[in-house]
Amino acid sequence: MTLASAPQTKPLAADELRKMNAYWRAANYLSVGQIYLLDNPLLKEPLKIEHVKPRLLGHWGTTPGLNFVYVHLNRVIKKNDLSVIYIAGPGHGGPGLVANTYLEGTYSEYYPNISEDAEGMRKLFKQFSFPGGIPSHVAPETPGSIHEGGELGYAVSHAYGAAFDNPDLIVACVVGDGEAETGPLATSWHSNKFLNPVHDGAVLPILHLNGYKIANPTILARMSHEELQSLFIGYGYKPYFVEGSDPETMHQLMAATLDAAIHEIKDIQEEARKNGIEKRPQWPMIILRSPKGWTGPKEVDGKKTEDYWRSHQVPLSNMAAEPDHVKQLETWMKSYKPEELFDGNGQLITELAELAPEGHLRMGDNLHANGGILLRDLKMPDFRDYAVEFKEPAEIKAEATRISGKFLRDVMKLNLDSRNFRVFGPDETASNRLADIFDVSKRTWVAQTLDYDDNLAADGRVMEILSEHTCQGWLEGYLLTGRHGYFSCYEAFIHIIDSMFNQHAKWLKTTRHIPWRRPIASLNYLLTSHVWRQDHNGFSHQDPGFIDHVVNKKSEVVRVYLPPDANCLLSVTDHCLRSRHYVNVIIAGKQPSLQYLDIDSAIKHCTKGIGIWEWASNDQGGEPDVVMACAGDAPTLETLAAVDILRQNFPDLKVRVVNVVDLMTLQPETEHPHGLNDKDFDSLFTTDKPIIFAFHGYPWLIHRLTYRRTNHNNLHVRGYKEEGTTTTPFDMVVMNDLDRFHLAIDVIERVPQLGSSAAYVKQMLQDKLIEHKHYVAEHGVDMPEVLDWHWSYDDV
Amino acid sequence: MTLASAPQTKPLAADELRKMNAYWRAANYLSVGQIYLLDNPLLKEPLKIEHVKPRLLGHWGTTPGLNFVYVHLNRVIKKNDLSVIYIAGPGHGGPGLVANTYLEGTYSEYYPNISEDAEGMRKLFKQFSFPGGIPSHVAPETPGSIHEGGELGYAVSHAYGAAFDNPDLIVACVVGDGEAETGPLATSWHSNKFLNPVHDGAVLPILHLNGYKIANPTILARMSHEELQSLFIGYGYKPYFVEGSDPETMHQLMAATLDAAIHEIKDIQEEARKNGIEKRPQWPMIILRSPKGWTGPKEVDGKKTEDYWRSHQVPLSNMAAEPDHVKQLETWMKSYKPEELFDGNGQLITELAELAPEGHLRMGDNLHANGGILLRDLKMPDFRDYAVEFKEPAEIKAEATRISGKFLRDVMKLNLDSRNFRVFGPDETASNRLADIFDVSKRTWVAQTLDYDDNLAADGRVMEILSEHTCQGWLEGYLLTGRHGYFSCYEAFIHIIDSMFNQHAKWLKTTRHIPWRRPIASLNYLLTSHVWRQDHNGFSHQDPGFIDHVVNKKSEVVRVYLPPDANCLLSVTDHCLRSRHYVNVIIAGKQPSLQYLDIDSAIKHCTKGIGIWEWASNDQGGEPDVVMACAGDAPTLETLAAVDILRQNFPDLKVRVVNVVDLMTLQPETEHPHGLNDKDFDSLFTTDKPIIFAFHGYPWLIHRLTYRRTNHNNLHVRGYKEEGTTTTPFDMVVMNDLDRFHLAIDVIERVPQLGSSAAYVKQMLQDKLIEHKHYVAEHGVDMPEVLDWHWSYDDV
Repeated sequence: MTLASAPQTKPLAADELRKMNAYWRAANYLSVGQIYLLDNPLLKEPLKIEHVKPRLLGHWGTTPGLNFVYVHLNRVIKKNDLSVIYIAGPGHGGPGLVANTYLEGTYSEYYPNISEDAEGMRKLFKQFSFPGGIPSHVAPETPGSIHEGGELGYAVSHAYGAAFDNPDLIVACVVGDGEAETGPLATSWHSNKFLNPVHDGAVLPILHLNGYKIANPTILARMSHEELQSLFIGYGYKPYFVEGSDPETMHQLMAATLDAAIHEIKDIQEEARKNGIEKRPQWPMIILRSPKGWTGPKEVDGKKTEDYWRSHQVPLSNMAAEPDHVKQLETWMKSYKPEELFDGNGQLITELAELAPEGHLRMGDNLHANGGILLRDLKMPDFRDYAVEFKEPAEIKAEATRISGKFLRDVMKLNLDSRNFRVFGPDETASNRLADIFDVSKRTWVAQTLDYDDNLAADGRVMEILSEHTCQGWLEGYLLTGRHGYFSCYEAFIHIIDSMFNQHAKWLKTTRHIPWRRPIASLNYLLTSHVWRQDHNGFSHQDPGFIDHVVNKKSEVVRVYLPPDANCLLSVTDHCLRSRHYVNVIIAGKQPSLQYLDIDSAIKHCTKGIGIWEWASNDQGGEPDVVMACAGDAPTLETLAAVDILRQNFPDLKVRVVNVVDLMTLQPETEHPHGLNDKDFDSLFTTDKPIIFAFHGYPWLIHRLTYRRTNHNNLHVRGYKEEGTTTTPFDMVVMNDLDRFHLAIDVIERVPQLGSSAAYVKQMLQDKLIEHKHYVAEHGVDMPEVLDWHWSYDDV
Repeated sequence: MTLASAPQTKPLAADELRKMNAYWRAANYLSVGQIYLLDNPLLKEPLKIEHVKPRLLGHWGTTPGLNFVYVHLNRVIKKNDLSVIYIAGPGHGGPGLVANTYLEGTYSEYYPNISEDAEGMRKLFKQFSFPGGIPSHVAPETPGSIHEGGELGYAVSHAYGAAFDNPDLIVACVVGDGEAETGPLATSWHSNKFLNPVHDGAVLPILHLNGYKIANPTILARMSHEELQSLFIGYGYKPYFVEGSDPETMHQLMAATLDAAIHEIKDIQEEARKNGIEKRPQWPMIILRSPKGWTGPKEVDGKKTEDYWRSHQVPLSNMAAEPDHVKQLETWMKSYKPEELFDGNGQLITELAELAPEGHLRMGDNLHANGGILLRDLKMPDFRDYAVEFKEPAEIKAEATRISGKFLRDVMKLNLDSRNFRVFGPDETASNRLADIFDVSKRTWVAQTLDYDDNLAADGRVMEILSEHTCQGWLEGYLLTGRHGYFSCYEAFIHIIDSMFNQHAKWLKTTRHIPWRRPIASLNYLLTSHVWRQDHNGFSHQDPGFIDHVVNKKSEVVRVYLPPDANCLLSVTDHCLRSRHYVNVIIAGKQPSLQYLDIDSAIKHCTKGIGIWEWASNDQGGEPDVVMACAGDAPTLETLAAVDILRQNFPDLKVRVVNVVDLMTLQPETEHPHGLNDKDFDSLFTTDKPIIFAFHGYPWLIHRLTYRRTNHNNLHVRGYKEEGTTTTPFDMVVMNDLDRFHLAIDVIERVPQLGSSAAYVKQMLQDKLIEHKHYVAEHGVDMPEVLDWHWSYDDV
C-alpha cells in the first residue's frame, strides 16, 4: 500500500495553461447560457429580461467542476492518444457535458441543426430544459453518455462495467460527494477487486468534493483529510488530492495529478500484461475538492452562494422581479470573456478548438459510448442439443436451471475468445445451479486467494459480489458498451434493483427514438430460487412482484417469460440472448421438477408464447367445460395434478389446459406487441366458460393484463397472496390456495354440470387438505402422493 | 484519530473462562440440534436416522460466531448492568439466537410449551424450520429481535435507528462479511456522523469476518489487515481486531476487547454528557475473524468444511443415504459434551444459567426489542389550526407540503421533550418544502460544521443523508423500538427502498399474529416532488409505481392516500401519525396548487376516503350522464378543468365528480378493510354510466383494484403511461393524455346524447392541444388560460 504524494511539478507551460483555462471558461459560459438564455447568446447586446428563459431549470453547482475535469481529460487524451469515456456521476450537470461535446464538435455532428455559430449557440441554449428540447441531465440524448446520472449511485459500477474486457479503454468516472453517500456507490468502490489489469481497461474515479448537496453539506466533504485518505486506501485505491479554488494553481495541480495517474495506470497494465498479476494493483484515484458553483456569483442578495448549497441549481432566479439579477447574470457571463473565446460568428476560436482530441478520441464520439455500434452477435451453440429427453410428459424430473447452465456454459465457451459475454449474480451462480459454467470460466477474483479456493480466477467471466446493485450496474455498463450478459438472482431480492431497472428501461425507451443510438443487447434476468421454493428461507425470501414492477414500463422494451420446464427454459434463454434492446425477465425453478415438453414442442410453445396443451386436455374437437390456465413451473404442476384429480373423478368433464410462457400474450395487442388479438384470445379461453388460472405471481396481475378480454368475468386467478413461511413446497402452495386440491375445488364450484358426485368429491378434496396439514406437521415432508405424482393419462 | 491497540490482558479467570466456554458449547449444541434433530435431544440413546429431520434447512456457518458474541455480551451486561440489544445481521443464523434466548430463559417465558427440559428441548429442535414451526431466521418470532436479517444490508442502519434517543441503550450489531458487501450496509457505517453521544445510545458494530458467503470468499476477508483497518478508520471508527480459532485464546481476547470497547463508549458518553460535544467521537468497533462453521466438522467426505464455504448451510447432509453422516453428526454434537451442560432433565445446569443476565437485561427480553411496549402517543396539535382558508373552492393556491410542514413543525415542538419523533429524508426536507420544521429542530449533524452552515445541530431531529436506504433503515429501527417517524422522499426514488419496504411490511404482517408483540407506530411516507411536477428533472425522476408495489402486500398493513389539496393533506397526516402498525403512503404535491376543500369538508372527505364533490357536480338529485373520478392533485385539477369545459359547452350534461383520497376504498371490502361494499361503490360510480378516471399513477392500477365492480366495463382510466421529459407541468399531463382537453374528449366520445355540437367541441379541444404544443415550444411556459384557470361555477 503506497500513499500518493501530491505531484510537485507544474507541467503546463504558460501558454497551454492560458488556453486550457480559456477552454474551461468557454465550457462554463456555454453551461450558464444553456441554463439561462433564450437569445442573445454571445451577449453582443445588453442582456435584457426577454433574453432570459421564463423558467430556469438546471443545476449549475456541479457543472464547473465537470467542465474542469473535461478539459483536463482532453489534454491527456491528446497527449497520450488515449481512448477515454467520461461518466458524469452528477448527471444533473448536463449543461457541462453538452457544452463540452459542442466545443469539441461532436454535438453539431450528431445534431446538425445545432451548428457551430451564433445561431447554433442560440438553439443550443434554448433547447436545454425547454419543451421540445433536451433533458437537463447527461441523458441518452447527450453524445458520449452511457450514464444519465439522474438517479444517483451507479456511476462507479457503470464505469467498471464499461472497462471490463476493454483493455485499451480508460473510464474517467466523476463521482459527486452527494452520490457518494448512496449505498450502491459506497460498495461499488470495491469493484477494483474484480478488474483484471491484463484484459480489462482502467477506471479512474474522480471523487468530486463539491461540498454540498441540495441543502446540506456532504459527509465526505466533512471528514478529515486523514479519514478520507484512509477510507480510499481502505477501499484499495491510491488517492491523489487536488484541492483549491485558484484556477491557475488548480490547473497545474490537476494536470500533474492526471499525468501521474495515467502514468500509473499504464505502468500497472504494462507490468501485468508482461509478467502477469502478482497481486491486486492499487489503482490511482483523484479526490478533487473545488467550490460548488465555482466561478459563479459569490453572493446573491447578500447571501453566500459560490462554495455553498445555494449554488446547487440556479444561483440567480426570480429574474423578472429582480432586474439586478439580470445585471448580475450578464456580469457573471461576461466574466468568462466570450469575445476572447468565440469569433464574430460564434465559433470557438481555432487555438482553443485545437485543444480537443480528434475523431473518435473525442469523448463525445467515443464508440464505446454508443455500444450498439460495437456490438457483435454471440456465437451460439444449438440449444436443442441440451434438451431433456423423455417419452411421456410429466414422467421424469430435471432441474431446469441446471440444464440451462450447460447451455450457458457453451455460450460462454464459444465466446471466450471474443471476450464479450459475462454472467452476473450476487453469490448465487452455484446456488442457482448454473455451476457448469465454471467448467469453462471461473468467478472473477483479483483479490487474495488461498490454496483451497475453488472456481476463482483473475480472468474469470462469472461476476459475483453480494450486491445486486453492483451486479446490475456492472451489467448495464457492459451492455451499454456493446457486449452481452446474463444476470441470475433470487427472485425476491431482485426488488433491490427495482429503481435501477427503471432507469435502464427508461434509457432503452428513449434511445429507441434517437436515430444515432444503435440497439444494444438485451438485459437478461434469470429469476430463480423463486417464491414457491424458498424452503429454508421462508417469508422474507418470497416476493414474485418484480413482474408487476417491470410491466409498468413501456411495452416496447419489456418481456416476461415463465418457462414451465427445462426445454422451454432453453428455448427462451436462446431467444433472449439473441434479442436486442429489451429487458427480458425469465422466471424458472432450480429444483427437480417434472418435464412436460420435448424440445420441438417446447420451441413451438415458446415461439407462440401461449397455447393449449392438447396432451393434457380432453376437449379435443369441441368446447371445454372449463379452462385450466397456468403460468410458471409450480402452478403448471398443480394445474396438471388438479386436472388429473378432475378427470379421475369426472370422466365426462371436458378440461382444456392452457399454458402461458410469454406473459405479455395476455395483454391486448394494442397494449403490447406480443399481445394476442381478441379472436385468438377468445379461441383459447372461450367466451363464456370458467377459467381457473394458476399463476406464479400475485394473482391480480393477471386481471390487470386481461380485464378487457371478453371472458374476463369468468376468470378466477390463484397466485401468491403473501402467505408463507419456512415449510414444504406443497404446503407453500396450499397456504396460498394454489394447490391441486384448491384448484380442483375451484372447478367444482364453478362448473354446474358435474352431477351428484360433485359434493362428495369436494369433501374428499377438503379432507385431503386436512390430511396434508397433519402429515407435514408430523413428518416435515410432503405426502408421498404429492411427492410422487406424475402424469399417466394414456389410460384415461 | 487513534489506532486501537489489541488489549493484552487476559481478563477471564480460569473458572469464568471454563464456564463461558461451556455456555458457548451449550448454545452451539442447541443450534446444531435445531438444524438436525427431530428427537433424542440429549443424545441419551445412540443417534439414529429416525432422530434426524428428513429435510435439513438452516445455516450453521454463521451460527457459532453469533453464539460466541452472545455469551460475551451476556458477560459485559451482567458485569456493568447494561441495557443491550443484539442485532444479528446474519439473520440466517437464527438457531443461534433461538438457542441463546432459550438458554437465558426468555424463550420459555414467551413460549411456555418450549419448556426448559428434555421435552421442551425436543420441541425446540423439531419446530425449527419445520412446517407449523418457526422460521430459520432471526424472525419476528424470535424474542429480542428487531431485525430478521433475511434480506441483507440493513443491520447497521437498524442499529443506529434503535440507538437514537435511547441514551442508556447499547446496540450490539453483528455484521456479516457477506452483508458488508451490500450497498446499503456499505454506506450505513457513516451513520456515526449522526449519533449524538449526549442524547443517543451507542452502537457497537461487530464485523464478523466469517470468510465466506454461500460459495465465495468475501471481499472484506480478503483485504489486507492494513487496508481493513484503514477502511474503518476512514469510516470514522476505532477498529479492534479479534482474530483466531482457538477458543481459549479467543475468549480472552474477546473479553478484553469488549471490556475496552464498553469502557470507551462510557468514556465518550460521560465526556459528552458532562462537557458537550467537542468533535465527533471515534466510536469503537470490533472486527471478529473466526472460522466459518467454527467447531463444526473439519471435513466431510474428505472435503474441507470448517473454515470454508461448505459450512454455509448444513455441513452434513444426505443423511439417509450416508449412515456415516449420522455417525459424524453424533460425534459432532457430543463434542460439545451435553451431559456436562444439561442436567438429567435437560435443564441447563445452574452454574451456567447464572451466566445470563436477569429480567429485562436478558437480550431476549430487552423491552426496546418489543418497541410497542414502550410506545407512547405523540402529543398532537390540532391540525385544523393550520388549515388554508378561502371562500370558494379552486380559487386560491397553496403549497400543500408547506402547509403540512407547519403542522409537522408543531408536532415536533410538542414532542421535543419526549424525544420520540424524528423526520427523515434524503437531503430533501427543504426541497419538499417542509423547512418550517427547522424552526424548532435542525438537521442532525455530528460531523464538522463551518461558520456559515445553517440548520445543522448535533441534537437536531431531522435526519438527512443522501441514502434512501439509510433513511429507511434508521426509521425502521426507530419505529421498531417504540418511537414515531415521518419519511419524505421524491416519489420516483422511493423505489430505491422497494425491497426494504417489503421486509418491513412482512414484519408488520407477521407480528400482528404474535400475541406478545405490541403494535408499533406506522411507517409514514410522504411522497412528493411527484411524477407530474418534475419540471427540471424530467423522465428519470418520473415513476408513480411505488403504489403498485405497496398494494401487493397484505391489505391489513398497507394504506395509500392521495390528498388533493393542503387541507386534505393535513387531515391525512394527522390520521397517519396517530395510526399503528401500518405502512401509510401519502402522495401530495409541493407546488402552488388550487385548494378545494375547507377544513371541515376535508376532514369529512378524508374520513370517508372517497366521495362526490357536490360543488363541482351538477347531477344533484338524479343520475349523472358521466362520472368524472380523480385521485391525486394534478388529476383533480385536470378533472375539474375538464368539467368546466364540459359544462360551458354542454349545459345539460349531468356530470358527477368523485374524488378518491383513500385508494383502498376502490377495492372490494373483502379484499381490503377500507374497501367500499358494492352497494356504496355502485351508488358513487353508477352501474352503467361512463366513468372517466384521472389517476395520479399508472392507469391499470385502478383496473386492478376495481375489476370486480359492477360498472367496471364502463371505466376508462387515464394516468401516467411512461411519457415524460423536462417540460412544463401542463405539457406533462398532455403527454400522458391526462389533461383537461383529453379528459373532455374522453367524455364526448362516450356520452351519446351530447347533440350536434359534440363534434364541433371535440375539434375545438383537439385544436387546443395543438395550440398548447406550439405555445410551450415557443414560450417555454404554459398558456395563460391553463396557468390561470380556476373554478367559477356560481354563474353556471
